[in-house]
Amino acid sequence: MNKFGTIAAKCWPRFFCYRAGLSDVVVRMLCSLPNEQIAEELAKLMELKAQLGTNDGKPQFLLKTPKGTRDYNPKQMAIREKVFNIITDSFKRHGAETIDTPVFELKETLTGKYGEDSKLIYDLKDQGGELLSLRYDLTVPFARYLAMNKITNIKRYHIAKVYRRDNPAMTRGRYREFYQCDFDIAGQYDPMIPDAECLKIVHEILSELKLGEFQIKVNDRRVLDGMFEVCGVPADKFRTICSAVDKMDKMPWEEVKNEMVAEKGLAPETADKIGEYVQLHGGSELIDRLVQDAKLSQNKVAMEGLNDMKQLFEYLTLFGVAEKVLFDLSLARGLDYYTGVIYEAVLTPSQADIQTQQNEHSEPVNVGSVAAGGRYDGLVGMFDPKNRKVPCVGVSIGIERIFSIMEQRLEASDQKIRTTETQVLVATAQKKLLEERMKLVAELWKSGIKAEISYKQNPKLLNQLQYCEETGIPLVAIIGEQELKDGVIKLRVVATREEINVERVNLVEEIMKRTCQS
Amino acid sequence: MNKFGTIAAKCWPRFFCYRAGLSDVVVRMLCSLPNEQIAEELAKLMELKAQLGTNDGKPQFLLKTPKGTRDYNPKQMAIREKVFNIITDSFKRHGAETIDTPVFELKETLTGKYGEDSKLIYDLKDQGGELLSLRYDLTVPFARYLAMNKITNIKRYHIAKVYRRDNPAMTRGRYREFYQCDFDIAGQYDPMIPDAECLKIVHEILSELKLGEFQIKVNDRRVLDGMFEVCGVPADKFRTICSAVDKMDKMPWEEVKNEMVAEKGLAPETADKIGEYVQLHGGSELIDRLVQDAKLSQNKVAMEGLNDMKQLFEYLTLFGVAEKVLFDLSLARGLDYYTGVIYEAVLTPSQADIQTQQNEHSEPVNVGSVAAGGRYDGLVGMFDPKNRKVPCVGVSIGIERIFSIMEQRLEASDQKIRTTETQVLVATAQKKLLEERMKLVAELWKSGIKAEISYKQNPKLLNQLQYCEETGIPLVAIIGEQELKDGVIKLRVVATREEINVERVNLVEEIMKRTCQS
Repeated sequence: MNKFGTIAAKCWPRFFCYRAGLSDVVVRMLCSLPNEQIAEELAKLMELKAQLGTNDGKPQFLLKTPKGTRDYNPKQMAIREKVFNIITDSFKRHGAETIDTPVFELKETLTGKYGEDSKLIYDLKDQGGELLSLRYDLTVPFARYLAMNKITNIKRYHIAKVYRRDNPAMTRGRYREFYQCDFDIAGQYDPMIPDAECLKIVHEILSELKLGEFQIKVNDRRVLDGMFEVCGVPADKFRTICSAVDKMDKMPWEEVKNEMVAEKGLAPETADKIGEYVQLHGGSELIDRLVQDAKLSQNKVAMEGLNDMKQLFEYLTLFGVAEKVLFDLSLARGLDYYTGVIYEAVLTPSQADIQTQQNEHSEPVNVGSVAAGGRYDGLVGMFDPKNRKVPCVGVSIGIERIFSIMEQRLEASDQKIRTTETQVLVATAQKKLLEERMKLVAELWKSGIKAEISYKQNPKLLNQLQYCEETGIPLVAIIGEQELKDGVIKLRVVATREEINVERVNLVEEIMKRTCQS
Repeated sequence: MNKFGTIAAKCWPRFFCYRAGLSDVVVRMLCSLPNEQIAEELAKLMELKAQLGTNDGKPQFLLKTPKGTRDYNPKQMAIREKVFNIITDSFKRHGAETIDTPVFELKETLTGKYGEDSKLIYDLKDQGGELLSLRYDLTVPFARYLAMNKITNIKRYHIAKVYRRDNPAMTRGRYREFYQCDFDIAGQYDPMIPDAECLKIVHEILSELKLGEFQIKVNDRRVLDGMFEVCGVPADKFRTICSAVDKMDKMPWEEVKNEMVAEKGLAPETADKIGEYVQLHGGSELIDRLVQDAKLSQNKVAMEGLNDMKQLFEYLTLFGVAEKVLFDLSLARGLDYYTGVIYEAVLTPSQADIQTQQNEHSEPVNVGSVAAGGRYDGLVGMFDPKNRKVPCVGVSIGIERIFSIMEQRLEASDQKIRTTETQVLVATAQKKLLEERMKLVAELWKSGIKAEISYKQNPKLLNQLQYCEETGIPLVAIIGEQELKDGVIKLRVVATREEINVERVNLVEEIMKRTCQS
C-alpha cells in the first residue's frame, strides 16, 4: 500500500478521497481534522475544484443535486413504493379519500402559521405576479383547501413532498425536500373518536412496516396550558415555555430548567413546579392521579384535557393499541396551531439492541420521531373570512427516516430487490431474427405480458441470458429457425436452466402460469 | 328578471359575475368588452376587492391557489389514479424502472437547455446558498442524473410535476404546474429499435385511454436540416426557421412564409422551396419518393434521416402501429436538444365529431398534442466533463390535457365515481353501542377489511345508511343488543336493502365474498 493509501485508510470517508482524486497534501490535512468535519471540508474542496475548471480548460459544471436533496435510484424507488403501499393501504382501510394541492402556495397563505420556523420557508423569486412559497407541510394547504371549498367534513390522505430550509442531516434521513404522508379527519364529531382512529392508524402502519419496537407519546395542549397556569407561568410565556418543555427528549431537565430561568426569565420555583409535572409519564393510572391532583383538579382547561385523555385511553383499549401509548407530560410539539391532543411516535430499540449499543458506544442512540400530529381546531377558521371553524385532527408519517432504516437493512441483508417487473425476455441465438423477435414481443405485449427484447440487431445469446440474471427476469422465450418452422417457442427458466418447447399459441398461457404466483 | 340579470345574461361568464357580487356598473362595463377579455378583467377586479377588505373591516385573505395551478379534489384524484395506472402499466410492460429527482435543480443545470423558453423557468429566491430553479421538464434532470451517476444504459420512467411560467389556459388543460409522464431509453443501440418502442408505447397508452382517434406525426431533425440546406437556408438560420415551420399546425402556410421572409429575412424563393417540402406528409411511400428526390438525395444528412425513417416504418409495421403514424415534414418541435427522430401525438376527432363541430361552430377545433418526444443524443454529454455521449430517445405524455377530457366526459356521462374503497360501514340502530362498534371495526381492520364507523356516540341509523348511499359503501354491518347476545351481525346490502344474519366468526369471509369481485 502506497503512502497515499495508508493515510487515506485512516480517514473515515476514504472512498470519497479516492473518488475526488485529491492530492496527498490535502488528504493529510483532512486526516488531521475530526471525522465529522472531513465530509464537510471535502464537499467544499470539490465544489472549489469544480469552479476552477478542469485541466483541459473547459469550465467544469457542478454536477450535483441541491443541498439537502437527493435523487431516488430505481432500487430506492422500489423500497419507496413498498413503504407507500403499506401506508396508503392503511389510509384506505380507514375509508380515506385523497387530494392534491400545488407544490407552492401564495406566500401569505403560509404567513403566521409556523411561528419561529417561518424562516425555513423557501420563497420563489419575484418574477412579476404573485409572491409564492414552497409548501412547508401539508396541513396548512389542507386547511386552505377546506376553507376555499367550504368543506366541513372530510377524511382525506395526502402524500407529497414538502420543503424546509433546515440544516440537513441526510444520513439520519433529514432532508430539505422530503415526503409527508398525512391523514386527517375534519368535522364536528364527538370527542376523541377521530383522535383515537388517528393513533390506531399510526399503530397499524408502524407495525406493518416492521421497524422494530415503537412507542406513541400523547399529551394535550390543554393539560400543558392548565399546568402552566397552576404553576404560575404568566399567560404570555405559555408558548415559549412550551418550546422549552419540548426539548426534554434531547436534554436533561436541569438544562431545560436553566433555559426557562436564565433565558426566559421564569422564577426558579415556578420552573421547579413545572419540573414535577413534566417528568411524569404513564398510562391511565397517571391520568387518574392527575385528576385527583390538588392544583390541576381546580383548573378547568386542564380538567377538560385530562377527561378527554381518559376517554382517549378507553377508546385505544377498545382498538387494542393502548399498550404502546404513553401519556407523557413532557411532549409539547413545536407548531403553534395545535389546540388539543398531540402525539409523536418514536422507535424504541429493544432491550437486546440497547445492550449491544451500550457496549459499543457510551450513550444510547436517539432514533427520533417517525410520526406526529394532533388536533388543530382553529386553523381552518384562520382562512375563513367569517372565521367559521372546522375542527380537525390528523397525523403525519415521516417517511425519509423510515426509508433510511429500510435502505440500511436491505444493504446489510444482501437481499436482491428487483426494479422491473419483466416476466420474459424474447431472445434468439441466431442472426437476422430481429423481425421475428419484434413480432413475438408485440404479441406478448398485446396479451398483457411484461416483455423485453434486446435493442441490438444480432445480440449474443450469452449477453441476453446475462441480462436476465442481472435484472431478475425469470423466463426467456428463445426463437430459432427450426422453432419458427415447427410453430414452437423454446421457453427457458433462468433459475434452473430448464428448457421446454411450447406451442406458440400456448405461450402466453404458459408464461402466465409460470410467473403469476410471484 | 331585473336589470342586473338582463345585462349579465348577455355576458359569457355570467356565473362569475353573480358569484363575484359585482355592481351593475361594473357588469355593464364588462359586457362592452370582447368575451375573451372579460374573464381576465374579472379576475383582476376580484383580486382588488379581496385586497381592499370586506365590510366588517377584517382584511380579507385572498383564498386561492397560485395562478395557473389547481387543487385536485377526491374525484379528480380518482380519475388521475386511473390514468396513471394505465400509463405506468404500459411503461412496466416494456420493462422500465423508475427514478425520482428533486423538484428543483441548481439554476445552472437548466441554463442553456431550453432556448427561448428559458424565460418561463421559475427561479427560487436567493435566500443565501445555492441558486435554484424549479424543473422545467423531466428530460434535463434525467440527463443530469445519468451524467452524475455515470450511467450509460437505462430504460426508465418518471412521473412528476414540472413548472412553466407560461400563459395558462386551464379549460384546455394548460397549467403552470403540470404532470409529465416520461419514458426514455438511454444506451448505444442499433438504429431505430428503441425509437420504435417509444412510438409503440404512445400507441398503446392512447389506445388504452380510449380518448378517440389519434395520429402520431413523425419527422427527423436531420431531414429538416438537410432540407433547409438544399433549399439554401444559411446554417445560422436553421433553428429560427425550424421554429417558424413548427407553427404550421396553428397557421396557414402563407403566414408562416411571411414570418420567414418579413421577420426572419429569408429570400422568398428559398421560402417557396421550403414550402414545397413542408406541406408533404404521408407514409413509407413518401419516404421512397424523397429518397429519389433530385436535391435531397444529394444531401448526406437528409439521407441519413430518410434511411432511418424508412427503417422506423418497417419496425412500426412489425409492431402493428404503422397505420396511425404519419411522416409529416412540417413537424419541427420547439426544443433545441433533439438530434434525430421527433414525434408528436394529436387527438383527431372522428368524421362524425368533425361534422357535428362544423355545424355548431364555424372553425374546426384544434384538440392539441397529448404526447411528444424524440431523440437527443447530445444532452447527457453537456453535463459530462469529458463530453462523453449517451444516446437517448424518449417520450413524454401530457397528462393534464387527458385529465381535462376525461373529467369533461365523466361529468357529461353522469356516471358516479367512488373516491374511497370502503367495503363496509359498522353501524347500529341503538344507543350506547359505540364501544361495540369500535371493537367490531377493529376486528375487521385486523383482517384487512376496509371499514368505517360514524364518529358520533349515538348516530341515527338513517344517517348511517345515507352515508353509505352517498359514498358508495356496498355493505352495512349492523350491531344490536339481540345480535350481540346471539353472536351474529346483521349484514345489509345497500343496493338491494337485503338483510341477512351472519355468524360473527364468518363475517370477514362473507364481506370478502360479497365485495372482492368489485
